[in-house]
Amino acid sequence: MHIVCLDLEGVLIPEIWIAVSKAAGLDGLARTTREEADYDKLMKGRLDILAANNLRLADLQAIVKGMEPLEGALDFVRTLRGRVQFVLLSDTFDQFARGILEKLNWPTLFCNTLEVAPDGVITGYKIRQQDGKRCAVRAFKSINARVFAAGDSFNDLSMLREADAACLFRAPQAIVEQCPDLAATDSFDGLLEKIDVFLQESP
Amino acid sequence: MHIVCLDLEGVLIPEIWIAVSKAAGLDGLARTTREEADYDKLMKGRLDILAANNLRLADLQAIVKGMEPLEGALDFVRTLRGRVQFVLLSDTFDQFARGILEKLNWPTLFCNTLEVAPDGVITGYKIRQQDGKRCAVRAFKSINARVFAAGDSFNDLSMLREADAACLFRAPQAIVEQCPDLAATDSFDGLLEKIDVFLQESP
Repeated sequence: MHIVCLDLEGVLIPEIWIAVSKAAGLDGLARTTREEADYDKLMKGRLDILAANNLRLADLQAIVKGMEPLEGALDFVRTLRGRVQFVLLSDTFDQFARGILEKLNWPTLFCNTLEVAPDGVITGYKIRQQDGKRCAVRAFKSINARVFAAGDSFNDLSMLREADAACLFRAPQAIVEQCPDLAATDSFDGLLEKIDVFLQESP
Repeated sequence: MHIVCLDLEGVLIPEIWIAVSKAAGLDGLARTTREEADYDKLMKGRLDILAANNLRLADLQAIVKGMEPLEGALDFVRTLRGRVQFVLLSDTFDQFARGILEKLNWPTLFCNTLEVAPDGVITGYKIRQQDGKRCAVRAFKSINARVFAAGDSFNDLSMLREADAACLFRAPQAIVEQCPDLAATDSFDGLLEKIDVFLQESP
């Protein structure tokens, strides 16, 4: 059995926090795991900004619902599903992502959870586990799946290196240069090609 | 994070081998894991019958492509996807199931693989691992997911008992009676209710 593990933001949809930053006019929310490798530091900063501006879960959900998948992403998902099982591994939050998953025809997503007070204020967040993407790949390998992984950020590197085959997808030049051990592509066609090679090489 | 694990045949689609049996007019293919708990014995018998009747993979795929999901299954899948992540755990074969997965809008499926000769003759089969459904539930628990499972057959029992919560779905009376420890329901509404309770009880 083969499983393809994909990062979500920057691969199939735009970065959610950048979209929120633009829609809410709050520049401080625009930092992502591309710029800040310390995820906890990143998230605490985001929650502080939300609280200071009285933004609640429903406000963020409305913004995410208005987002669209990246150009070509829906076709890519359709093609991929005809060839191999795939799962999205993301550091985003379930309550966020739901609004845009529908537009991708409900791919399976393993991610994290926001802690929300009854009045809708986001009070914190629950990480499923540390290094969760890598652990998910390891869990798939433990059930004898062969795993291919693709992602664009710092937080994808351990997942990519744990997988049987992998490639960076639209990663910033700095990450591509820091990771000469990883293949890289910027197009969905290029990604499909690499996945096809993986499917043929390890039946 | 929550994951719902569902058996495929008898839950969302009819039993594939029964459909093949009817379409090919071969009664011997109609036995399933409901009647025969020894899966290897069951599969070897099926492959012998296929070989004796010169049925190849393409013949079986054409039959499966003509199948339809069970009544209400597509609505159930749609509703479920809006509430929780779910994965199909099945002892069927990837090359079979693909034809009907599309009609369910491509849910994620972990299953087994047929071994097929270049001329399309099915020469054998590859089980991903022994007790694969249970191992998949265990793998999901290892990444800190809370797991709900539902299925109808002997080969689902270890998966159901490994899960944090579970229920039999449209199981034969004999299995329901042999398993007083497991809840049981025969309707998609009943199953959704049990899943909702699970989501509320273990946030």
